[in-house]
Amino acid sequence: MNVPTNLGFTPKDIAKAVQRGDVIIVIDVLRCCSTIVTALANAAEGVIPTKTVKEARVLHKKHPEFILAGERRGIKLKGFDLGNSPLEFSPQKVKGKHIILTTTSGTKAIISSKKAKYVFTGAFLNAEATARAALKIAEREETGISLISAGTNGRFSLEDFICAGAIAKSFPADNIEHSDAVLAALLAFQQARKSLKKVIQSGCHVRYLISQGFEKDVKFCSQLNVFEIV
Amino acid sequence: MNVPTNLGFTPKDIAKAVQRGDVIIVIDVLRCCSTIVTALANAAEGVIPTKTVKEARVLHKKHPEFILAGERRGIKLKGFDLGNSPLEFSPQKVKGKHIILTTTSGTKAIISSKKAKYVFTGAFLNAEATARAALKIAEREETGISLISAGTNGRFSLEDFICAGAIAKSFPADNIEHSDAVLAALLAFQQARKSLKKVIQSGCHVRYLISQGFEKDVKFCSQLNVFEIV
Repeated sequence: MNVPTNLGFTPKDIAKAVQRGDVIIVIDVLRCCSTIVTALANAAEGVIPTKTVKEARVLHKKHPEFILAGERRGIKLKGFDLGNSPLEFSPQKVKGKHIILTTTSGTKAIISSKKAKYVFTGAFLNAEATARAALKIAEREETGISLISAGTNGRFSLEDFICAGAIAKSFPADNIEHSDAVLAALLAFQQARKSLKKVIQSGCHVRYLISQGFEKDVKFCSQLNVFEIV
Repeated sequence: MNVPTNLGFTPKDIAKAVQRGDVIIVIDVLRCCSTIVTALANAAEGVIPTKTVKEARVLHKKHPEFILAGERRGIKLKGFDLGNSPLEFSPQKVKGKHIILTTTSGTKAIISSKKAKYVFTGAFLNAEATARAALKIAEREETGISLISAGTNGRFSLEDFICAGAIAKSFPADNIEHSDAVLAALLAFQQARKSLKKVIQSGCHVRYLISQGFEKDVKFCSQLNVFEIV
């Protein structure tokens, strides 16, 4: 059986993917998914996404031993232990710990997907591993795969679109049926990969992050297939 | 002044583009915009888009001298003079004539844009000419340019996305500020242009059109910069 793949940009697309019973890959390269993947690669016990800052604070009151992390407008929240820089999530800080994380777009998209049986967090850092793991499940469960670009405040995001293409590139071509949007992302990735970091830096949200001093984060998140974590 | 460009996929994106006062380029490669461009290149007097089949028939009753053209599900409508194949719109048939045209997606997107001061129909056939003309107006009027992908029944369309990239490629780089979606389309076009016809043929709507016997249309519409008509 061929596995159909889709790429969605909106909350409506997430709802449709959940309804179809698809394996969901939420993509938020800058920086939510890159942060989660890095935290797990550095041996964090688990990452608990919350939609609002308030929910994060309430959960932290119940579990003060958890790390409280997150951002709004890219900036670490008042009283939080960590922001949303993957580089902050070092083994020294996160090993063996639970992390509560709230971000502007990424954690919202993950929570919107929570009714799906399988949700992955996709980033450049773990693109290939994510593709492999998601396809294995989709084949076993005979479902499709939906790539969801979390975007930035609901806007189309260049880096997430290219990352969708990077993930799609790692599916074997022979038993996959790509939607038009996935095919487009694949083309964009093939063109961008020659100078991935430079292309990513031309995006709108990246320029904002760099203006806020997060250039190192952007460089870190632009690395392809660094982690096996999914 | 830099000219900002956007790329939208939904009726909501059209509404926003109109509100911003942008010059709008509606893109529906297969086949509405390619058909309109071809008709005009073959000296049709004008093309009048209508949203519904009923509106087209009513208008034709008032003006039986006009050519009645259009499709639903890709197929020519009952009692209509022409379908939506650009190849049907030969000089012999359309020279000096008005054409009433109703299509599934393209004419709807054009009509949704009618409150905009300037609306172009973009296709591969006239990508460069459209880019030049739209930019000239946007510079003069100090507005942005919105590329609108008409899609297929509201779905993301590979060929329209790539065509948006082809149009964007023809804007000079130095006074343009591309949104993330335009940058993504540009990457996809740069990758696709090496084998444009083949890439376009991998899209979902194309496969449907080919199954309905419209392979020649697909080939015709995949030609880049054939007409100067905008």
